[in-house]
Amino acid sequence: MHSNLWIEETFEDYLGLRFKVERILFSGKSEFQTVDIVETKGHGKMLLNDGLVMVTERDEFAYHDMITHLPLFTHPCPKNVLVIGGGDGGTAREVIRHTGIEKCTMVEIDAMVVDACKQYIPQTSCALNNKKVNLVIGDGVKFVKETSEKFDVIIVDSTDPIGPAQPLFGEEFYQDVYNCLSDDGIVVSQGESSWYAIDIQRSLLTVLNRVFPKCFLYNFSNLTYPGGLWCFTFASKKHHPINDFNEQRVKDSGLTFSYYNTRLHTAAFALPSFVISELSDLIDNSEL
Amino acid sequence: MHSNLWIEETFEDYLGLRFKVERILFSGKSEFQTVDIVETKGHGKMLLNDGLVMVTERDEFAYHDMITHLPLFTHPCPKNVLVIGGGDGGTAREVIRHTGIEKCTMVEIDAMVVDACKQYIPQTSCALNNKKVNLVIGDGVKFVKETSEKFDVIIVDSTDPIGPAQPLFGEEFYQDVYNCLSDDGIVVSQGESSWYAIDIQRSLLTVLNRVFPKCFLYNFSNLTYPGGLWCFTFASKKHHPINDFNEQRVKDSGLTFSYYNTRLHTAAFALPSFVISELSDLIDNSEL
Repeated sequence: MHSNLWIEETFEDYLGLRFKVERILFSGKSEFQTVDIVETKGHGKMLLNDGLVMVTERDEFAYHDMITHLPLFTHPCPKNVLVIGGGDGGTAREVIRHTGIEKCTMVEIDAMVVDACKQYIPQTSCALNNKKVNLVIGDGVKFVKETSEKFDVIIVDSTDPIGPAQPLFGEEFYQDVYNCLSDDGIVVSQGESSWYAIDIQRSLLTVLNRVFPKCFLYNFSNLTYPGGLWCFTFASKKHHPINDFNEQRVKDSGLTFSYYNTRLHTAAFALPSFVISELSDLIDNSEL
Repeated sequence: MHSNLWIEETFEDYLGLRFKVERILFSGKSEFQTVDIVETKGHGKMLLNDGLVMVTERDEFAYHDMITHLPLFTHPCPKNVLVIGGGDGGTAREVIRHTGIEKCTMVEIDAMVVDACKQYIPQTSCALNNKKVNLVIGDGVKFVKETSEKFDVIIVDSTDPIGPAQPLFGEEFYQDVYNCLSDDGIVVSQGESSWYAIDIQRSLLTVLNRVFPKCFLYNFSNLTYPGGLWCFTFASKKHHPINDFNEQRVKDSGLTFSYYNTRLHTAAFALPSFVISELSDLIDNSEL
């Protein structure tokens, strides 16, 4: 269609990541953000919100494996899961692979993201019509304030703390998350890059520390985010991500994964020295 | 000097990484490759060979920590080290921080890289005049064929297998490396990206397996290489990178590191499932 079309994500005013585009599949502007889906040459279909790469078909398994299976295999018996954000559907898809899951509620603020992914990226959105998935189009901040349900695991699968996701990085939100977690609940959140956004990591971990007794940071490799090394935060009322991790549950599940495995589960909490040194007052990784 | 100058590294015909440039410090063409050093806005000074990013001041510590300290803390008593390539000097700089090292021979084929880094990137080249560093401008392939010395650790700090580094990925070279390693010697090599170049990893590991009894792949995060997740290969006559790793030696060394630490030493060998599945016949990581 276009002979030389590229899409570029920029970071600050000094870095650009360019991806060759074969076709623009969808371009819209919701009340929250711009939403684009493009077919790239090297990474399959790609979703961008406000011009930032969210998921690509080529590497989405890494992100979705690590945000989902690590908390679900740490909690001994998760049944009721809440996903905040995650409009592409990939996180919900991984959650319901666990046969013990009775319900996965997903609260996505932007219907346009869900609709566009349903139409153009079935690889991630394929589970959104599953009967175990309770899809709510609405504000996750309001949802956790008002719900009377209790969740075993909450996954905050958000964009960066700009635009609609900003309140998802605040203390009031995490106090409400705490309140609607079961007594042994776990919350895992998109935790940014230690290379390029350690200030946001510090800010998020400061909030989590005010609310939760134990906070950890774990990392994985994202192919299409700036810098590659990316993090999730892990905050817990009770369970320890390594000491309470029972490898046998992974084996017994019969599930297979393209990224996650039992060794990576533990290794993901080993952080580079500069990260430990910047965040040591806010993370319990050093006690591992 | 220039109002809007950028340098771009491209991968295949579908990916570009762009870095904002403040000043071009050096541009030359040797008999082997083009050599550029630029001052970037976000990553400090940056060396490029044939247009590919080699090192930047901002993240070089990750690469140099992981290529150097992992083998030097695995070998129980390394005294004589050989570095092939590594013209920027960062690997030699880290080698001689180990007080037990008596000599670090560095064989770099391209004098222009060494001279330009000596002039413009003292952060990496600062140790090249140290009396323990034996700097040889010459062909590493020829050197390992002809030397009568024995080395405890050999570090192949090479560019990609195009241009001058091509023979450094071949079997004849690694047979000669084997021959000039001591009876309990270790060789670690720049091992490319599992996301974008798993075919090169397969090819290099195939060669290593023909020569060495034990071969491993370990990973780290490089900020400025395409995809972020990067690997080194570890091949050994005798020592096992984890079972024979004595953490106490790290503590006793008194050295501090911005990237390397004892937990990462082990965690670096935990690979994503897709990597294990592609390379399981060639790596011993699974026995860890």
